[in-house]
Amino acid sequence: MWKKSALKDKIVKLEDISHTHHYVTEKTQGKYHYVYGPYPTPVLSIKSGDTVTCETHDAFEGQIKTESDVPSEILNFPYLNPQNGPIFVESAEKGDTLCVEILKISPRGEQPRGTTLIMPQFGGLVSTKETASLQKDLPERVRKLIVTEEKGTIWSDKITIPYEPFIGSIGVSPEIEAVSALQPDYWGGNMDLPDVRPGNIIYFPVNAPGALLYLGDCHATQGDGELSGVALEHPTHTTVRVHLVKDWKISGPRIESENFIMSVGSARPLEDATRMAYRDLIEWMATDFGFDRIDAYMLLSQCGRVRLGNMVDPKYTVAASIKKSYLFGE
Amino acid sequence: MWKKSALKDKIVKLEDISHTHHYVTEKTQGKYHYVYGPYPTPVLSIKSGDTVTCETHDAFEGQIKTESDVPSEILNFPYLNPQNGPIFVESAEKGDTLCVEILKISPRGEQPRGTTLIMPQFGGLVSTKETASLQKDLPERVRKLIVTEEKGTIWSDKITIPYEPFIGSIGVSPEIEAVSALQPDYWGGNMDLPDVRPGNIIYFPVNAPGALLYLGDCHATQGDGELSGVALEHPTHTTVRVHLVKDWKISGPRIESENFIMSVGSARPLEDATRMAYRDLIEWMATDFGFDRIDAYMLLSQCGRVRLGNMVDPKYTVAASIKKSYLFGE
Amino acid sequence: MWKKSALKDKIVKLEDISHTHHYVTEKTQGKYHYVYGPYPTPVLSIKSGDTVTCETHDAFEGQIKTESDVPSEILNFPYLNPQNGPIFVESAEKGDTLCVEILKISPRGEQPRGTTLIMPQFGGLVSTKETASLQKDLPERVRKLIVTEEKGTIWSDKITIPYEPFIGSIGVSPEIEAVSALQPDYWGGNMDLPDVRPGNIIYFPVNAPGALLYLGDCHATQGDGELSGVALEHPTHTTVRVHLVKDWKISGPRIESENFIMSVGSARPLEDATRMAYRDLIEWMATDFGFDRIDAYMLLSQCGRVRLGNMVDPKYTVAASIKKSYLFGE
Amino acid sequence: MWKKSALKDKIVKLEDISHTHHYVTEKTQGKYHYVYGPYPTPVLSIKSGDTVTCETHDAFEGQIKTESDVPSEILNFPYLNPQNGPIFVESAEKGDTLCVEILKISPRGEQPRGTTLIMPQFGGLVSTKETASLQKDLPERVRKLIVTEEKGTIWSDKITIPYEPFIGSIGVSPEIEAVSALQPDYWGGNMDLPDVRPGNIIYFPVNAPGALLYLGDCHATQGDGELSGVALEHPTHTTVRVHLVKDWKISGPRIESENFIMSVGSARPLEDATRMAYRDLIEWMATDFGFDRIDAYMLLSQCGRVRLGNMVDPKYTVAASIKKSYLFGE
Repeated sequence: MWKKSALKDKIVKLEDISHTHHYVTEKTQGKYHYVYGPYPTPVLSIKSGDTVTCETHDAFEGQIKTESDVPSEILNFPYLNPQNGPIFVESAEKGDTLCVEILKISPRGEQPRGTTLIMPQFGGLVSTKETASLQKDLPERVRKLIVTEEKGTIWSDKITIPYEPFIGSIGVSPEIEAVSALQPDYWGGNMDLPDVRPGNIIYFPVNAPGALLYLGDCHATQGDGELSGVALEHPTHTTVRVHLVKDWKISGPRIESENFIMSVGSARPLEDATRMAYRDLIEWMATDFGFDRIDAYMLLSQCGRVRLGNMVDPKYTVAASIKKSYLFGE
Repeated sequence: MWKKSALKDKIVKLEDISHTHHYVTEKTQGKYHYVYGPYPTPVLSIKSGDTVTCETHDAFEGQIKTESDVPSEILNFPYLNPQNGPIFVESAEKGDTLCVEILKISPRGEQPRGTTLIMPQFGGLVSTKETASLQKDLPERVRKLIVTEEKGTIWSDKITIPYEPFIGSIGVSPEIEAVSALQPDYWGGNMDLPDVRPGNIIYFPVNAPGALLYLGDCHATQGDGELSGVALEHPTHTTVRVHLVKDWKISGPRIESENFIMSVGSARPLEDATRMAYRDLIEWMATDFGFDRIDAYMLLSQCGRVRLGNMVDPKYTVAASIKKSYLFGE
Repeated sequence: MWKKSALKDKIVKLEDISHTHHYVTEKTQGKYHYVYGPYPTPVLSIKSGDTVTCETHDAFEGQIKTESDVPSEILNFPYLNPQNGPIFVESAEKGDTLCVEILKISPRGEQPRGTTLIMPQFGGLVSTKETASLQKDLPERVRKLIVTEEKGTIWSDKITIPYEPFIGSIGVSPEIEAVSALQPDYWGGNMDLPDVRPGNIIYFPVNAPGALLYLGDCHATQGDGELSGVALEHPTHTTVRVHLVKDWKISGPRIESENFIMSVGSARPLEDATRMAYRDLIEWMATDFGFDRIDAYMLLSQCGRVRLGNMVDPKYTVAASIKKSYLFGE
Repeated sequence: MWKKSALKDKIVKLEDISHTHHYVTEKTQGKYHYVYGPYPTPVLSIKSGDTVTCETHDAFEGQIKTESDVPSEILNFPYLNPQNGPIFVESAEKGDTLCVEILKISPRGEQPRGTTLIMPQFGGLVSTKETASLQKDLPERVRKLIVTEEKGTIWSDKITIPYEPFIGSIGVSPEIEAVSALQPDYWGGNMDLPDVRPGNIIYFPVNAPGALLYLGDCHATQGDGELSGVALEHPTHTTVRVHLVKDWKISGPRIESENFIMSVGSARPLEDATRMAYRDLIEWMATDFGFDRIDAYMLLSQCGRVRLGNMVDPKYTVAASIKKSYLFGE
């Protein structure tokens, strides 16, 4: 993909790949899933190298149709954030790494296909189930917005937001747990990281046989932290290519873009998510790029970068990154 | 049970109860469980009012046998904290409350039957997966200790700790999730609250048909916070009586002792667990005891009590309580 | 004071003490102080062993006079939590420890002398300056309450709260900082710990010449966490005896009661305050009582106790304790 | 400065300005300061519009001279992070805003003039005073590095880091507190935000007569979070222009660059710093740009940006920002 990739000598293993293309439509998906886990029957079985296009729903499964809808009357926890999948990857076993290239995201469905909203006890600047208060909730509010690839989203007379799509929730199954698609963790899930966008690769540790890839919850764009708890949610056609890297054991999601490598941490409080991300980045620099760990620690103090995914989910998500030029030389 | 109980007029519903006693032995349990979820077949089906005695394993399923064992070589995440159950309670449905009276806990098994230990990346005064650091782990250490009901535990020549047993992990199934028995949450789980002891009642919101009660992880005693991450773990005979209260909807675990009512919160950071617990306690005081919410808030600022369960699990657990004498009058 | 004290062989240094008694009245105090710092002129100079009685104001300096007062119109940050002092202790130098025995607290002033209230952006179950939200503040509310030593406080027809007074804010000066009396830290300050009560001793590290003791903010009682941000505030006569222990260097406040020793931590988030308290307790057990640190860590996991002071101040305060019987034998 | 500025109609007040240039050399500074507070005599008095060039020390006051120095033996808390100032700004009073244009930062002093290091109990991936652990500290390590404007910093054979200087610590005095220069807060201080760089403006609320500007601790570059606790510290000539905006009351630091406005929050845990920053940004958008607060909240969920300053100081610092094009139209 790139001349210089974190995959390095692992790349040779990617050469002998299959190139079948699969579709997971609303119809072939049937029931969407609200947990990441090993219990459902896979919707599809693929080989390393295959590509898949999924018809994703928005995070509300299309139930919010007009600006006069009242979210708390319509939405029904835990039946939120519907996911496509699980997709079984042949030969994937615990101890391997799944490598997902994000190829393309296009909006689908009738206009106005974009949705954002305020609902009670959810969001970054309101009290929640955990950050409990006695104050009255904000009034609920729904925005239904026209989203196109070419023109982005018209927010108001003055404000147009470009189309910068990414996958909000993507990951593999835990080994024996089945966890809400609202939560991010070491298997991926609801990370809400804008770097999970076309052109980038994301890596996951395989925990269960077949890896069991889930994805959904695509955003037309999103600010750092996903402040109100809801991005510009929209249904899409999302296409990924999936590679299996045998015998590469990682402990959580990692992302690679043309110019950066990134480690992802999900935890509360937010400093713990950041610590996790940075520690894994140091581990990566040491294991694959020959750095002394303390030197990497001191170097990242000078040139590390942090991206806040969300600070609204059951765990908050942060990516810590370093430029590839510091790893490979210019 | 007590003259003055939070159950109040709900108590009449407890009168027409069954009194069958059931046993769940190691043999009838067969495979123990490592997640709280709706997916396994129940080990037992009971009626409201029945009692059950379980043969619980210790948190390490008896695998730590001597002080020269090395925990990190023997223990295998996520196969930790084995639970008895699930026990199906007839007629229990989402929206009901399960009420579990803890009747008796007795140690079982060969001496030294008590175990506590230090393992890497786990505990309250070490770096962990989340509170990541680059420092070297503490050396692992195992203590195997004689535990008896009468004499407690002899820690050293000078120190004897009384036997104050409680159930470390107990709860019901989430609706569609299946979550590690290491984690506490609104369904109960690994709360590590010493108030879950013989003589007290614990209430859980029913989320799935049959409630699906799990329990295990009994502690011979424990300090506030379970500082090193491990209490005095031991296998037991644990006996509980289970009541179903129809149409009483609660949002998380609550505990009642002879003199206190308590609400339980599990979250990170620890202030959020405390906020959750106190907010639910105010809700309880308002709904069942006629308090104005703001008056209850101001009153708890004068006489609320907080018990720290653990600050080492994936979520930390806190109980907030108020004396019943403030609710019922002396 | 007690047969078995943490002071142990340090106790001999307390024998050759002075016994002069001093008064700091409203009049001799003159201007009260709103920061703990080395910059003001001492109100009094004493010798080790002297006793002092202070006329303390309540936390609002008596400005809240009726239940129809509106706190946000009357109170003026940073001029809150008025402190008596500073009291200069002869010979005290950085590296010493100041030992303050709390002898007596009596309410003073006209009835209703007790005050508690709700003010905007302050408290444990509301959004604050830090835990910012967009929700509307709770309505302000003031309670003015009769407080007596004998009968405590009549909260309502049904509820009477006993008089359990303690010093909410007490400490010494930082070396060069001057920090709001609303904040607790390693020098003491606004810890809001009910264990700072008559019969107990509190220890502080001396940071500045003369130690510069401040105190104020006495509470007629308080719940764990000081939930609404305000306890039962009242003006008092507070009497303490002050000892200087030369060459005993501690890193933060410690408390001793008849049956427990306690270390105090103040930080955010709350788990950090708890970590600080427990680490210092282990340090104390190792240095003064001969424990191996890892053994102390594992022992506290079985029998440590945690008391939450407040979770509403700029830093939250926790005390971690162990029974003296585990240190000295029964 | 820019055609479109947050100062808008406030800009007219900047026209009638003085243009005197002042120098604060090591010699005229004399004693540097380790707290931000109102107690020292100002080193200089200036008029609104004046420029000042300061000879700043590095954060260690030049005491770390070679790579074999042992930081914990040389550095002496609280005498760290030396600040120039305080600079008295004529007519500045509580309720005004101080506006500081950063004009230029140049390295000064003998090579190797750059310093970074690891010291015990300090940093983002080690245990600290607050995030206490029992693990052994990392070994101390010092890097002394050549820093030039043209070539940046040569970290190793392969790695060169460009010179991207900014002011690590800058702010005004609190009203009556005097707080360690290691801490950031609503008055500014040790924010470690790379956006405080030449070409940008930073705004502070005036709390004390004359505002009392302090600055120091310039970094040759820094990664997000200042991971090891220490950036590339170096002594500089730093030049700023200071404006006073009368009767503009803000509650914490704000920054303006050519294309963004940013609000700064400092708190623990890190989510609270982020909440503070975003709430103030919404307040700014509402007050000065006519946004409805809930609309601003929802819009920032789509296009807000977050920059992590440090997650190692006594409070962590975050800046939340929005593009000016969303405020002014393109």
